[in-house]
Amino acid sequence: MSDVRIDDLPVRDELRGTSPYGAPQLDVPVRLNTNENPYPLPEPLVERIAERVREAARHLNRYPDRDAVELRARLAEYLTRTSGHAVGLGNVWAANGSNEVIQQLLQTFGGPGRTAIGFEPSYSMHALIARGTGTGWISGPRGEDFTIDLAAAREAIAEHRPDVVFVTTPNNPTGTAVPPETVTALYEAAQAAKPSMVIVDEAYIEFSHGASLLPLLEGRPHLVVSRTMSKAFGAAGLRLGYLAAHPAVVDAVQLVRLPYHLSAVTQATALAALEHTDTLLGYVEQLKTERDRLVTELRAIGYEVTASDANFVQFGRFADAHAVWQQILDRGVLVRDNGVPGWLRVTAGTPQENDAFLDAVRELKKEQSA
Amino acid sequence: MSDVRIDDLPVRDELRGTSPYGAPQLDVPVRLNTNENPYPLPEPLVERIAERVREAARHLNRYPDRDAVELRARLAEYLTRTSGHAVGLGNVWAANGSNEVIQQLLQTFGGPGRTAIGFEPSYSMHALIARGTGTGWISGPRGEDFTIDLAAAREAIAEHRPDVVFVTTPNNPTGTAVPPETVTALYEAAQAAKPSMVIVDEAYIEFSHGASLLPLLEGRPHLVVSRTMSKAFGAAGLRLGYLAAHPAVVDAVQLVRLPYHLSAVTQATALAALEHTDTLLGYVEQLKTERDRLVTELRAIGYEVTASDANFVQFGRFADAHAVWQQILDRGVLVRDNGVPGWLRVTAGTPQENDAFLDAVRELKKEQSA
Repeated sequence: MSDVRIDDLPVRDELRGTSPYGAPQLDVPVRLNTNENPYPLPEPLVERIAERVREAARHLNRYPDRDAVELRARLAEYLTRTSGHAVGLGNVWAANGSNEVIQQLLQTFGGPGRTAIGFEPSYSMHALIARGTGTGWISGPRGEDFTIDLAAAREAIAEHRPDVVFVTTPNNPTGTAVPPETVTALYEAAQAAKPSMVIVDEAYIEFSHGASLLPLLEGRPHLVVSRTMSKAFGAAGLRLGYLAAHPAVVDAVQLVRLPYHLSAVTQATALAALEHTDTLLGYVEQLKTERDRLVTELRAIGYEVTASDANFVQFGRFADAHAVWQQILDRGVLVRDNGVPGWLRVTAGTPQENDAFLDAVRELKKEQSA
Repeated sequence: MSDVRIDDLPVRDELRGTSPYGAPQLDVPVRLNTNENPYPLPEPLVERIAERVREAARHLNRYPDRDAVELRARLAEYLTRTSGHAVGLGNVWAANGSNEVIQQLLQTFGGPGRTAIGFEPSYSMHALIARGTGTGWISGPRGEDFTIDLAAAREAIAEHRPDVVFVTTPNNPTGTAVPPETVTALYEAAQAAKPSMVIVDEAYIEFSHGASLLPLLEGRPHLVVSRTMSKAFGAAGLRLGYLAAHPAVVDAVQLVRLPYHLSAVTQATALAALEHTDTLLGYVEQLKTERDRLVTELRAIGYEVTASDANFVQFGRFADAHAVWQQILDRGVLVRDNGVPGWLRVTAGTPQENDAFLDAVRELKKEQSA
């Protein structure tokens, strides 16, 4: 029995020969590879989490609130306060990470016999979740400078008539935000073609120089904005993603959500974190400053850098990006090779971590010039 | 925009006209409708959860252990200790509730163009998760007494050649365990027909008069046993499901699992609960006694009762089960109408809750006889 492997099992054909998604988890002094927030939660918030979870644990024999009403209300308040666009409980849905939010959206609006488009390179989980939900995937185009080429994007939508259109802003792994007028134009194109759902993935929006696209929800019932607490809230370990959309969209995803999908401890922990929003957004300001410093310094060293609205920076160009990734790793700094030919991605860490990274790439540049 | 409804959105056709799964959540003195464990976690465990979660919260800015290694190792030890069958880390996988375990299994082994069979009435989420993953659903037969009629079941497997076969033992909502020789016969039939994966759903096995079917995993790489901490561990609010199978199955589900699906707080809470296994299994013994008392008393009152190996009891028969459900509810006790014509299901609660329920149905019986 020990010689049975995946391919000996009756797995779906499209899974054969694939490997699980995920960055290498290596034990390295400076890890700037998965866009984590480098600042641990402040100790008062840690205590508040312990307190809220203790309370939740006293009722853990009961199923959690299936509709996560309190959490969704607090998330709605956060969105309203930070975007200026009024968002209510009925506009918000939450799940285990924005990956599960997207999975639920594709189970509802994509799936077998339907297609989704993304403009690549972009967040590679969109394509993987499409595969996992039986949704056909269309790789849409992106310009040379990694912005969305509107004419080409519209043409792709008109040609393929996708059921779901993904727009990631700021885009991952390239870093640049998408202007609102591009999103409204894509929305119009998508409505003319099908009509389709347009999912705006704002996982990194709190780090942007520009504003959230939440106000675009007004009058656009086929638009969805997805968010996460992993980055700005410094809570990658919590796995809390959420969306804002027309209440009908929130009703619709409940047709496919697994009942009681969001545990009582997850709800309690997220509620605690939302009580400390201002402190956490203070860290975001520090990270934006560091991100801008990375851009400036990398350019000063002589690298090409894509404009960044996120907590990471794409830099290049390299004849062999993976070789450079290894050379940086050899200097104790783990960055990310997302498979974009010629480019690597570095997460904005603490000032000390960023210094370590900049020292490493400065050294590399010198060696190359020598 | 306020007049937009689900049906105005481009949702999948098979979702139109459906409603979200879930029992009515009513505010009633005695809730015996969702097979929750009535015993809150003991206070030392509540404290241990707070302690472990506090520690996890200090690293919450980092992604959780993607492979949940410590948790899976502890679950493997629990299975080994309670079943006598050696289970290792590589045999175990965990997810957000057994629903997510089953969803991952169907994404791997079911999905578009494939089918799954269950012998109904059974746990209705199997069919719903099949729909959510694009897997065709086949409703297999069950005998008059709600046991699996082996000849009829074999015939259905030979006829439909399903890719996945579900066996729920003890069965929900009817309560009876499936003998091991029935499972091995169904496994053989499924291998002869396709070969297919056989998923044994043991959500309630700790309450059974008989033993777990884990030893059947030996030499059967297409067999999966799924489990949950919701019932025996008194942790429905935690959402922790898991499976035991050949390591190749564990490798295969990782091709579809969402990365970092299991939060650090979930892992920490589950690990704390596993430290208190003996206490929690003590509550299980009390519940088994109460479950047996419910069976005896209900029969003494004059009801028909299906033999139960679970923490719930199916009783009847009623010309109009839903009307009786309402009459019991009017007396302050919430039981479950699972849609099995003529039958209702009551969860074994505390002795006081069960007394309240028995008083209610005794009263009803008297009124009917009067």
